[in-house]
Amino acid sequence: MNTYTIASIAGDGIGKEVVPAAWRVLKTLERVQGDFELHVTEFPWSCDYYIEHGRMMPEDGLEQLEAFDAVFLGAVGHPDLVPDHISLWGLLINIRRGFDQQINVRPSRQFEGLSSPLANPNQFNLMVVRENSEGEYSEVGGRMYSGEDEIAIQNNVFSKKAVKAVMEYAFQLGKDRSGHVTSATKSNGIVFSMPFWDEVFNEVKENYPGIDTRSEHIDALAAAFVTKPETMDVVVGSNLFGDILTDIGAALMGSIGIAPAANININGKYPSMFEPVHGSAPDIEGQGLANPIGQLWTAQMMLEHLGESTAAQTLMNAIEYVIKQGTVTKDLGGDASTENVVKAVEEYLTSENTK
Amino acid sequence: MNTYTIASIAGDGIGKEVVPAAWRVLKTLERVQGDFELHVTEFPWSCDYYIEHGRMMPEDGLEQLEAFDAVFLGAVGHPDLVPDHISLWGLLINIRRGFDQQINVRPSRQFEGLSSPLANPNQFNLMVVRENSEGEYSEVGGRMYSGEDEIAIQNNVFSKKAVKAVMEYAFQLGKDRSGHVTSATKSNGIVFSMPFWDEVFNEVKENYPGIDTRSEHIDALAAAFVTKPETMDVVVGSNLFGDILTDIGAALMGSIGIAPAANININGKYPSMFEPVHGSAPDIEGQGLANPIGQLWTAQMMLEHLGESTAAQTLMNAIEYVIKQGTVTKDLGGDASTENVVKAVEEYLTSENTK
Ligand SMILES: CC(C)[C@H](C(=O)O)[C@@H](O)C(=O)O
Ligand SMILES: CC(C)[C@H](C(=O)O)[C@@H](O)C(=O)O
Repeated sequence: MNTYTIASIAGDGIGKEVVPAAWRVLKTLERVQGDFELHVTEFPWSCDYYIEHGRMMPEDGLEQLEAFDAVFLGAVGHPDLVPDHISLWGLLINIRRGFDQQINVRPSRQFEGLSSPLANPNQFNLMVVRENSEGEYSEVGGRMYSGEDEIAIQNNVFSKKAVKAVMEYAFQLGKDRSGHVTSATKSNGIVFSMPFWDEVFNEVKENYPGIDTRSEHIDALAAAFVTKPETMDVVVGSNLFGDILTDIGAALMGSIGIAPAANININGKYPSMFEPVHGSAPDIEGQGLANPIGQLWTAQMMLEHLGESTAAQTLMNAIEYVIKQGTVTKDLGGDASTENVVKAVEEYLTSENTK
Repeated sequence: MNTYTIASIAGDGIGKEVVPAAWRVLKTLERVQGDFELHVTEFPWSCDYYIEHGRMMPEDGLEQLEAFDAVFLGAVGHPDLVPDHISLWGLLINIRRGFDQQINVRPSRQFEGLSSPLANPNQFNLMVVRENSEGEYSEVGGRMYSGEDEIAIQNNVFSKKAVKAVMEYAFQLGKDRSGHVTSATKSNGIVFSMPFWDEVFNEVKENYPGIDTRSEHIDALAAAFVTKPETMDVVVGSNLFGDILTDIGAALMGSIGIAPAANININGKYPSMFEPVHGSAPDIEGQGLANPIGQLWTAQMMLEHLGESTAAQTLMNAIEYVIKQGTVTKDLGGDASTENVVKAVEEYLTSENTK
């Protein structure tokens, strides 16, 4: 029996609904599969926690998480309670950085049974590999002067190490998917960091002679996600560009509510973290309307990462089945509740289909 | 008779085809309208010019342009001849900055007769107002260390003056369109420049009590362009965010080949510049396949800016008519040549329709 320890952080808003929903499904999967066990520990870190303790997580929060095999996160943020830059940097980004989760991986593909906003989605199936530790998201910067003369400066910091790491990851993935790698750049407008990005891309690609590559400016690439997503396979981007492209990728699938993400620690020193792309959506919190598919697909990525490929495949089949069969929430045009979707997934898992 | 002097820079690639095409149409319009005159002076500045002179434009290039009423530009860039960051910064961005063209305005709307990549374009009609002089496109930055330790730093510089100017412009436009203004931010991840951006937005909106506003993170906003563009009216963004959103906006229309842009000098000291969103597309240069609609719509924006609203409206009618009637180039699914489209527009202009 393979046993894994998982730190579970539901966080804010609908995170508090979809994380328990995903755990019900994971426990059912554990039971029907019979060859792995997930030991869960829950952490109440969130904006509510902030209100009580003045921080999003305890001072030794990272130490508390360090020994787990993975972190399973819902959503962070409740702007009416705590400003976003405090809640997110205090928890989500704190873990990404504290645990050297340098890579963020997010798939986007067409599903049978879901209507894409695109007229011709053409079975697109792509994977965005995002630099997750630096770049445009930096804590270096500040303001000067005041009144009408005020200026704000924000440094984008790109290191060879981090850029090379994300490129290597993208090319490895390109090799596994036997496809090609597109790099998101903007070296025609952003003239220090982006030419550097391009150089590292060109350097790393020398080691992968079998892989087809292209480099596209982020403006044209964002447009190409809309006009021809089926021409993309692996797409590698900076922290900001990856962020933008993955939200577009999520939208193309029919709803951001189904998109998953993995924050990967590649040096093996710390746990990786799994969290859906969607936010905490406080406006629909507590109504039982949240789409649990994003959190479930995220669980699937976690299982895959832990090495439980069979369980991961079974869960993916269940997700595909339920979507195709039409038990979907409002954001996907259905009228199912969170509970209805969870039940349908569990039924699939316990039915003949898994035998 | 109203008379205007126009500096015309065809530039590179298909710029050399669509600019002359637009001039033919403008001259026809001038003739049928009979109440304005455009005096054209052509400038050969381009990558070819660079090869010969070692610069994209003469040292006194800006002085040569200064007295014109407007600059009419095709496209800049030919990466096989001159690296993009040299050609673009040496000509396009040089003019934008040298002439304090702080605002870049780009419309995007659905056209009858064009198929959008969206399944339900819902008659979207929006206008992106982009900060055009600073922000992420800065010349401040550099590199340090070498080999595996190398880092590149790029400063994003946001000034109160420039941010306030673009906000004011957006709110004025929102007022004229009697709609609402959406600000593109990313203050949850980019924690110095974007909270500053938000502050200025909130400050300026106090002076426009009638205008509905929202602030959306760029990732969610880019996704919303795909899922519900019809909910947007005026969208205000930084140099980079505006760049990305306008390419998506262009794609939504059916082809980037039709999208126009105005680079507006707001202090009245220098000419404004009008250039389509598309690039120089060297791959299709010289084949007579380029879509002239982007350059024609750009001409329409120039006429509007010069105060020739009637001529501008007539030209817009001609564009709409020709698109609806189906005389369109390959990028729009048709088989018309540049020449065919120009002829169809000219026929419209000289026909009964203008009487
Ligand atoms: C060519 C490039 C520098 C330019 C920009 O990013 O400003 C272009 O994409 C545009 O939008 O006009
Ligand atoms: C909430 C925000 C800081 C975050 C990001 O930009 O990284 C989110 O958009 C994401 O993509 O995970």
